[in-house]
Amino acid sequence: MDIKKNAPIGIFDSGVGGLTVAREIMRQLPNEQIVYFGDTARVPYGSKSKNNIIKYSRQIVRFLLSRDVKAIVVACNTASALALDEIKDEIDIPIIGVVRPGAVTAVKSTRNKRVGVIGTDATIKSELYTEYIHELDMDITVIGKACPLFCPLVEEGMLHDEVTDEIARRYLSGLQTENIDTLILGCTHYPLLRSTVSRIMGEKVNLINPAYETAMSLKQLLIENNLLNDDKEENDVKLYVKKSEVILPENDSDDGDYNGKYEFYVSDAAGKFRTFANSILPFEIESINQINIEEY
Amino acid sequence: MDIKKNAPIGIFDSGVGGLTVAREIMRQLPNEQIVYFGDTARVPYGSKSKNNIIKYSRQIVRFLLSRDVKAIVVACNTASALALDEIKDEIDIPIIGVVRPGAVTAVKSTRNKRVGVIGTDATIKSELYTEYIHELDMDITVIGKACPLFCPLVEEGMLHDEVTDEIARRYLSGLQTENIDTLILGCTHYPLLRSTVSRIMGEKVNLINPAYETAMSLKQLLIENNLLNDDKEENDVKLYVKKSEVILPENDSDDGDYNGKYEFYVSDAAGKFRTFANSILPFEIESINQINIEEY
Repeated sequence: MDIKKNAPIGIFDSGVGGLTVAREIMRQLPNEQIVYFGDTARVPYGSKSKNNIIKYSRQIVRFLLSRDVKAIVVACNTASALALDEIKDEIDIPIIGVVRPGAVTAVKSTRNKRVGVIGTDATIKSELYTEYIHELDMDITVIGKACPLFCPLVEEGMLHDEVTDEIARRYLSGLQTENIDTLILGCTHYPLLRSTVSRIMGEKVNLINPAYETAMSLKQLLIENNLLNDDKEENDVKLYVKKSEVILPENDSDDGDYNGKYEFYVSDAAGKFRTFANSILPFEIESINQINIEEY
Repeated sequence: MDIKKNAPIGIFDSGVGGLTVAREIMRQLPNEQIVYFGDTARVPYGSKSKNNIIKYSRQIVRFLLSRDVKAIVVACNTASALALDEIKDEIDIPIIGVVRPGAVTAVKSTRNKRVGVIGTDATIKSELYTEYIHELDMDITVIGKACPLFCPLVEEGMLHDEVTDEIARRYLSGLQTENIDTLILGCTHYPLLRSTVSRIMGEKVNLINPAYETAMSLKQLLIENNLLNDDKEENDVKLYVKKSEVILPENDSDDGDYNGKYEFYVSDAAGKFRTFANSILPFEIESINQINIEEY
């Protein structure tokens, strides 16, 4: 492959949720450049059909390829579950999603072989977490539950709110009686509700955020393909203002070095994306570019 | 104009909400054929930018024109507020939205000249209801309030639910102290929350559903343009199974004659649309066609 090591990594999501994955990649691979795309014009994916999610993912992959990325991370559970299998054979660079890393972590975590998965309608209906978990261990029982209101609640900023608590209690009540010891947060928005979910499920249930394992898998993939960036000088430009007081999601200690070059693209107006991004990322984004994704 | 009287009326919305408008048109104009398009692939519009809503509306208008419609109803408050002005000069057939009819009704309704409007972020930010109301009466005070979680709650079917009540109380608390006597339900999903909103606002506040006045305006527009269908035989085909027990939204008495020919198109999978449509319309939809709207 004629791919440059110092080329950026492409990351995409239906919107802002994938920034929780991008943040983890920035932390574990601080020497890498990133091109992030959020499909804010067509968000949410979780209630839409497989055909459209494949079509949207293909357009985004074409856009990222036009930015000369060396690898792609599908930082969206729904697109990982419904589109990754289709598109991975259509491109020449490494591509990974968040579902397999999440499944691998859950298999490592469970002791009693009972695992829960929460996600969008589309992700849960795809049953891909179950499939990947069973590839590793057929004896594990996987119980899925769609939580369609979690995304709008997170996007409204209602992370600590009695309404969110009540909705979470309803969604999780079935899982509470299933004796699971591991619960996959199978949507990139859900780590922002970690404390609510944790309170309801109890401390004996281990919550899996696939972002961490995804960043680990990406690193491994770059090493295997001899694509890890070792060109330090290239990335020395400090493009971002560091926050004096960083607001990070709960249970998150963050001390990475964010001096890489990060580009952000969206398919709708950047305003809401910027607000959300700046509450998730440990630096202020200075520029966000809007593109017409339907042209790709 | 060389438009046939027996051509269908095109109606579009970002998704299912516009069916509340379609239903009113079916009732008031039972002799008309309808082509309905729901943009379920790109729903919701309410959180998206003006440029994209204009682009989406243009594509849909081109699709409806390809179905030889004689007039178009923008049965979506957000698209009416952000795109109608742009697209009305680009086509040769009559087109109306729901915002002006809603504004007209509110002006007729208010006695104390204090009117509230609830809608999506985009509709409220556009301030188009205020503009249209002020064209009729500059002395009316208009107070707008965005209710972004109402749509997802309605789409989850949570019409009568303590969580919806709590969210509604929060959204409406500011309006409760504004001494309004009229409140415009400025999103086509909101008539389905009429009883909740009514309970919170009190019986002295008149709730305006723009759908009724929109159907009246459409009839007037068709008469003025000599486009009202008087070709009874054309529509005599009974295409739909009447429901033995019709589930209608609250406060709705429905005894229209639904023997017109109604076509339904969506841009994503039809499953959820069908369920929602069959809970709103007084007959069972038999076929829904999925199209690729980005091609128009």
